Amino acid sequence: MRDFLPAEKTRRERVLAVIRDRYRAHGFDEIETPVMEDYERLHAGIGGDNEKLAYNVLRRGLDADAVREAAADPAALADLGLRYDLTVPLARFYASHRSELPTVFRSVQAAPVWRAERPQKGRYRQFVQCDIDIIGDASTRAEAELIVATLDAVDALGLQDATVRINDRRALDAMLDTFGFPAAERPGVLITIDKLDKVGPAGVVAELRERGVHGRAVDTFEAFMNRPQTLEYLPYGEGQIRKALPDGVPDEVIADLVAIGEAVAATQPASEPDGAPLVFDPFLVRGMGYYTGTIFELAHPSVAYSLGGGGRYDGMIGRFLGTDMPAVGFSIGFERLVDLLETSEADAAASVVLIHDADVPLGGLLALKADLVAEGMRVRLERRTKNVKALLERAESDGFSSFATVNAGTKRADLEVKPLG
Amino acid sequence: MRDFLPAEKTRRERVLAVIRDRYRAHGFDEIETPVMEDYERLHAGIGGDNEKLAYNVLRRGLDADAVREAAADPAALADLGLRYDLTVPLARFYASHRSELPTVFRSVQAAPVWRAERPQKGRYRQFVQCDIDIIGDASTRAEAELIVATLDAVDALGLQDATVRINDRRALDAMLDTFGFPAAERPGVLITIDKLDKVGPAGVVAELRERGVHGRAVDTFEAFMNRPQTLEYLPYGEGQIRKALPDGVPDEVIADLVAIGEAVAATQPASEPDGAPLVFDPFLVRGMGYYTGTIFELAHPSVAYSLGGGGRYDGMIGRFLGTDMPAVGFSIGFERLVDLLETSEADAAASVVLIHDADVPLGGLLALKADLVAEGMRVRLERRTKNVKALLERAESDGFSSFATVNAGTKRADLEVKPLG
Repeated sequence: MRDFLPAEKTRRERVLAVIRDRYRAHGFDEIETPVMEDYERLHAGIGGDNEKLAYNVLRRGLDADAVREAAADPAALADLGLRYDLTVPLARFYASHRSELPTVFRSVQAAPVWRAERPQKGRYRQFVQCDIDIIGDASTRAEAELIVATLDAVDALGLQDATVRINDRRALDAMLDTFGFPAAERPGVLITIDKLDKVGPAGVVAELRERGVHGRAVDTFEAFMNRPQTLEYLPYGEGQIRKALPDGVPDEVIADLVAIGEAVAATQPASEPDGAPLVFDPFLVRGMGYYTGTIFELAHPSVAYSLGGGGRYDGMIGRFLGTDMPAVGFSIGFERLVDLLETSEADAAASVVLIHDADVPLGGLLALKADLVAEGMRVRLERRTKNVKALLERAESDGFSSFATVNAGTKRADLEVKPLG
Repeated sequence: MRDFLPAEKTRRERVLAVIRDRYRAHGFDEIETPVMEDYERLHAGIGGDNEKLAYNVLRRGLDADAVREAAADPAALADLGLRYDLTVPLARFYASHRSELPTVFRSVQAAPVWRAERPQKGRYRQFVQCDIDIIGDASTRAEAELIVATLDAVDALGLQDATVRINDRRALDAMLDTFGFPAAERPGVLITIDKLDKVGPAGVVAELRERGVHGRAVDTFEAFMNRPQTLEYLPYGEGQIRKALPDGVPDEVIADLVAIGEAVAATQPASEPDGAPLVFDPFLVRGMGYYTGTIFELAHPSVAYSLGGGGRYDGMIGRFLGTDMPAVGFSIGFERLVDLLETSEADAAASVVLIHDADVPLGGLLALKADLVAEGMRVRLERRTKNVKALLERAESDGFSSFATVNAGTKRADLEVKPLG
């Protein structure tokens, strides 16, 4: 868990402001839920592996006897827990407030989540997630809106040329069926296929053999991977999607993928020669078990890792609501984006450090400060020290753009504001 | 703990944005600390009554034996806790990062805290605090900057005519000394005096008698309260402060109060006839035990309760840092401010709901939406339902200002945007 010093905090808030502004423009409504949810709800089996990483909150008022009795049962010791994602709270929120929300509800959440992970580089125990979700729309309009809004948001952050890799769980299922993988083996097979980016086709095939997966299915899969067109991902469109897939994938799945591509392409500037910034990737898996249809990941040429991802999870809201409800979401990797954008921007607003002697009357000093603030400036007061140079360097590294010295009786009109640095 | 729906979340974010903007202009730097702090630090006796209300976080990986062993010792069951205020985390933050911060550090924090209070109207278990603090400045410049910045912030929120009631713990101490209250009785006496607003002078005297407080001291106190000038609070200035106090208050305390008043007055527009919007209140107490000097509360004529408060706490940072460090802080009652400002503002930005039939091609629809977003509008897509009137009413109540209907082939130039309502 990290402290954020002023420069970092400012950068984080700027990135958040851009993301919020863009999603809001695209019709998403921001909501907020409490950081703690009921223990039972957090541990209802929806959160996958993340559930095990939840921080649980000790019941209040437990006496020693109650603790002893509860020893073997964490649910008796803890009644609340910190959320480990924003999806479980969203499902709970939607079930609680459905009647107060539009029929098709487009939500945006930008908020911290907590996971008790082993500390390692780039992994934090408290980190911000930024999720958009559309609940109540079973059509591809939802996927297209999510993707267009997200591309606009990362574009506004200065990351042009982002692309979205897309696939569909139904296509993956059909593919595994066509290759002849037995149902019981498929979850393991998907975990191996998910490593394609890292280990390549030969590595995937080798790992499937090691796993002792059904031999003939692996042979079929290997032959398929060796076709020249299988890993030929561009340009996006019906021709490429059909070429990249084996037989047996339902036409409606292909039609959905094509419709999403056409809709996203229609929003791109005419100057973009390649159409939609989409890449169909028949081997994109996405880890979470709750996806039921399209799945996607945000990529950018400057980094090898994904900057976000999401997919359709039509079954999950229903578990809270008690009635079926289509839903699809896209989560931006906020922490990765902030790290990627970690260039020290100069402070945009005019700002000034006023260096004053200790004997400058307080009233005059604060009146001068108030005048500058009223003019739209950011103002810091610094009592003069022997080492004025150090004061000025400090102010410059803190993002201030100018300075002025103040003596007893200095008025706004007398002030000589000089640039720093 | 509350969910925030879109309208409420939007209002909260707007209030936060104004507060941040104003404090930033006045030279405060925003920081952020993790929501969890070490159990030992949270329960070090600095947080007063709030400490008892902390939510504690269960250690990970405790087995049943470990739980049984820990039964009587909460510190063995919990290693972390949620912060119950922003002052303890600030002290810890400052001690960790002092070398990276300016010599006089002006911080602003706007973040949630948690207290396991009994649910009651207007009290929440998760609520946002908004604190500014100045660390490293023992002079009255610090108090004056805090007060001026806070008055500017509430003014920018539309709450003109706010005032700050001010007192000094050193004056209170001297007063209790002059009246002859024995040292052991003073904490209880202060708790009773703190009720003056609610029960009046006679009520305070009666409660002191009931408490069995030293009789002659109560008599002296009663006589003092009955002087005509004692509860005559205006106008602020040296004359009134001296008149309102008994003998025995050190001159330097009075000089500090006068200097703060003059400095704040110097920042007020010349059109303000009353000078500083300050009220000297010799009976202002403020509950927390850690205050050592000036104490203050934010008031507004529209409400009977305080909208915030603070004071000087020169001893506390030293407990974390190991060396003395002056500090003074002002905390705005963010939740109260939001409630007070709860008028439904119209959405400032241009916004439009596009009503479309299900057969409008997705590409054309999303291209139209992208065009409007690029023009700076907020856009929501709505598939036409039988009850279009309900759709439009919903959109209006969600803050949208206009609507248009879209058919197959509608382009931006064809769009007839009509106002809602």
